[in-house]
Amino acid sequence: MSDHLLVAIGQNLKAIRLRRNLSQESLASLADLDRTYISGVERGKRNVSIINLFKIAQALNVKASELIDIGVAHD
Amino acid sequence: MSDHLLVAIGQNLKAIRLRRNLSQESLASLADLDRTYISGVERGKRNVSIINLFKIAQALNVKASELIDIGVAHD
Repeated sequence: MSDHLLVAIGQNLKAIRLRRNLSQESLASLADLDRTYISGVERGKRNVSIINLFKIAQALNVKASELIDIGVAHD
Repeated sequence: MSDHLLVAIGQNLKAIRLRRNLSQESLASLADLDRTYISGVERGKRNVSIINLFKIAQALNVKASELIDIGVAHD
């Protein structure tokens, strides 16, 4: 379950970033995170923590819940 | 920002758990996590990762996004 989850969230993040016309570099700067970290999240390689999730969401001007709302069946 | 965030999410988790009439022990068992970990999350002491967030949400039968939807201003 975990890998699919992280990959789906990474794809969701990338889609929102691109809608905002932000590069990984500018998103990383806005979120006070490293560009390689953002790249890792988008590739589904990072098990993001809540604090970093909120930093990224704030930088993208979306709710953190939107970043992880990927329609994973929860039952 | 971070401490308030983790405390608010912890309180939100506890409220949902109690609505489900689950003890920390049974939630931990359902989520395949340790009770002390659940306790730490509820006290705002744990910077929960996405994978654990989804495990807890699945155990509570809620969407992970609901667990972190604590109305933090994102602008």
